[in-house]
Amino acid sequence: MSLIVMKFGGTSVADIKKIKNVANIVSQEAQKNKIIVVVSAMAGVTNKMENYIKDINSDHNLENDLILTSGENVTIGLLSAILKDIGIHSLPLLGWQVPILTDSEHQKAKILNIDKNRINSFLENYDVIVLAGFQGINLDGHITSLGRGGSDTTAVAIASALKAERCDIYTDVEGVYSTDPNIVPQAKKISKLAYEEMLEMSSTGAKVLHTRSVELAMKNNLTLQVLSSMIKKNGTFIVDEQKLIEKEIVSGVSYSKNESKVSLSGIPDKPGLSAKIFGLLASKNINVDMIVQNISQDGISANITFTVPNNDINFTKKILENNKNEINYNSLKTDEKVSKISVIGMGMMSQTGVAQKMFKTLGNNSINILAISTSEIKISVLIDEKYTNVAVKALHEAYNL
Amino acid sequence: MSLIVMKFGGTSVADIKKIKNVANIVSQEAQKNKIIVVVSAMAGVTNKMENYIKDINSDHNLENDLILTSGENVTIGLLSAILKDIGIHSLPLLGWQVPILTDSEHQKAKILNIDKNRINSFLENYDVIVLAGFQGINLDGHITSLGRGGSDTTAVAIASALKAERCDIYTDVEGVYSTDPNIVPQAKKISKLAYEEMLEMSSTGAKVLHTRSVELAMKNNLTLQVLSSMIKKNGTFIVDEQKLIEKEIVSGVSYSKNESKVSLSGIPDKPGLSAKIFGLLASKNINVDMIVQNISQDGISANITFTVPNNDINFTKKILENNKNEINYNSLKTDEKVSKISVIGMGMMSQTGVAQKMFKTLGNNSINILAISTSEIKISVLIDEKYTNVAVKALHEAYNL
Repeated sequence: MSLIVMKFGGTSVADIKKIKNVANIVSQEAQKNKIIVVVSAMAGVTNKMENYIKDINSDHNLENDLILTSGENVTIGLLSAILKDIGIHSLPLLGWQVPILTDSEHQKAKILNIDKNRINSFLENYDVIVLAGFQGINLDGHITSLGRGGSDTTAVAIASALKAERCDIYTDVEGVYSTDPNIVPQAKKISKLAYEEMLEMSSTGAKVLHTRSVELAMKNNLTLQVLSSMIKKNGTFIVDEQKLIEKEIVSGVSYSKNESKVSLSGIPDKPGLSAKIFGLLASKNINVDMIVQNISQDGISANITFTVPNNDINFTKKILENNKNEINYNSLKTDEKVSKISVIGMGMMSQTGVAQKMFKTLGNNSINILAISTSEIKISVLIDEKYTNVAVKALHEAYNL
Repeated sequence: MSLIVMKFGGTSVADIKKIKNVANIVSQEAQKNKIIVVVSAMAGVTNKMENYIKDINSDHNLENDLILTSGENVTIGLLSAILKDIGIHSLPLLGWQVPILTDSEHQKAKILNIDKNRINSFLENYDVIVLAGFQGINLDGHITSLGRGGSDTTAVAIASALKAERCDIYTDVEGVYSTDPNIVPQAKKISKLAYEEMLEMSSTGAKVLHTRSVELAMKNNLTLQVLSSMIKKNGTFIVDEQKLIEKEIVSGVSYSKNESKVSLSGIPDKPGLSAKIFGLLASKNINVDMIVQNISQDGISANITFTVPNNDINFTKKILENNKNEINYNSLKTDEKVSKISVIGMGMMSQTGVAQKMFKTLGNNSINILAISTSEIKISVLIDEKYTNVAVKALHEAYNL
């Protein structure tokens, strides 16, 4: 008998009917394997708790985590009770009952240790353990939370610690798609992806899995499956590159509208200029992504263009304006109506012409490229936001996805 | 510096504004004393949880208690955060964090032990401990709940364990009244009551305090105060009889409409008859209250009348009907439209004529007495439910309350 970890998010346990559906899925898997099922709070509950915290404007981390983690008590209790009713020998456990030991960074705690022996002894006596996601306990005995998407992390961490055969992440889609099906109806479900590809997809806009949980799975060489809690069929397996028989040159096209472009022009072209600007922004925790620098036509001053997350654009403007004299730029322009389009694929490493095809496809559609950034398995370009759908559709077709 | 335990129920912490009010009351008391404040879940939350349990028809105790105890996470977190904002050094604790050790009788668990040393060490480092009411942990490490009114029990238990100077129970009324002010507007707030009087009042219909918490306070000789969370003034102190300077002959008049009358007639008058009937009901956990037995006019058969709680009347009928041959009665009649009226006072023990005045007052108002039961400090009569208000008003006046 193997161990399978299954994770169901808030929308999969939003009401009693949906929890009964989860119980059915779990009970089928429990015929063949020992199960740890990780659940979040009912959809909406964590938002409600966040609103309470906002209402009192609380920056008290210990208290905030107590409030934020209350919802999982309810879902693990309900799911375990329903499982018992259909004859499954089940045990509900909160984070502190395992315990899932974390550091004290409330609201973004990192898991330090999971008591394997204790869980294994529970697994000897029960068919299914229903575990509260998103929460842990620190060394002082206070409840901590792992941050948004934390239930994915709980599932992957416990699966890694216990060397589970697989960690299944149930969602409201059938898996990871070659691109957003809302834009390209022909988008197809990908059957296998390398961790690296999934990471690039997550960080370039595909919202299926939390980046942190993919990193953790990769580190532990744990097979992940993203699949639907509504339709019974295989989802997308996320595995080690070695396990991919054929590496796709391009596996998917992703996009993100959460980018803002900043352009500084007329800066004296001296060494150390970039270091000054980006050092300044990094010291304020602003994540700069794509950077383009070019010499202006007069040959003595430079222009710099880069992107920051939409959330940070106002803060970025303020910092640059406050340091206008020091940086010594001529003009500052910003544009929030831009979009980052990425093509991702493990096969790109050993294949040439991928970037060229991307640029040509965009050119044929009269789409201007504002900036470019690349990694070994990804090419991203920045374009005008209004061309997002046209670009995604054209690229999806160009790479025969 | 003394230790005061303060308890606020669900209606006192029903929203952020009310929790802020609680924080103000606590902060005033914290200027003079160390404080443990016990809170329930927000009004309505525990009912919502009970509905979930009803929806899935769960009889799984471990799971039910997990679900039922989720609401206190939120209130202790919010109250502690607000206290910190107004400069009070506060620590929120759940039942398992103390720990409050209970037996495994889920939904009606009894407290076995409270870790005094641990709490005392917390009290050295914090001004206020905000403690979740209603919940504990059993020896297997599972969460338990103490049943309805359980937060009162938590407050009294912790105050007793730590020998607190006083346990203040905050409610939406100003204290314990000589009778229900909804029936008698002149009803007055009682300033001091003996534990025994409060117990009789609780068990005869006054809903201010949970019987169990009064028993626990009496056993530990802990001073209780029932007071308002809306108006700042002294409430009703509940103390040892010895501390009452003047014992009132009658302190209060209470009533309960939660009674049903059962009459069995034409039973052969043999020894062991009552034992048979009431043994049968006791074995089914039915609580029989007032009992009247008399010989019928033919001199050879008896009639028996008694009361049971309204909830149990149908079950009682069923049991008696199923055992008709064995008991050998002639006819069975029930009446749910009856009311129990009680007069209560410590002074009654050394005073005669109290019962006589009660019977005379009811007689003067043409109210027929269906049954009588007495204790050292209480006289209860059963009457037709429609005369409840008339009887309560007349008795309140007759005893000059």
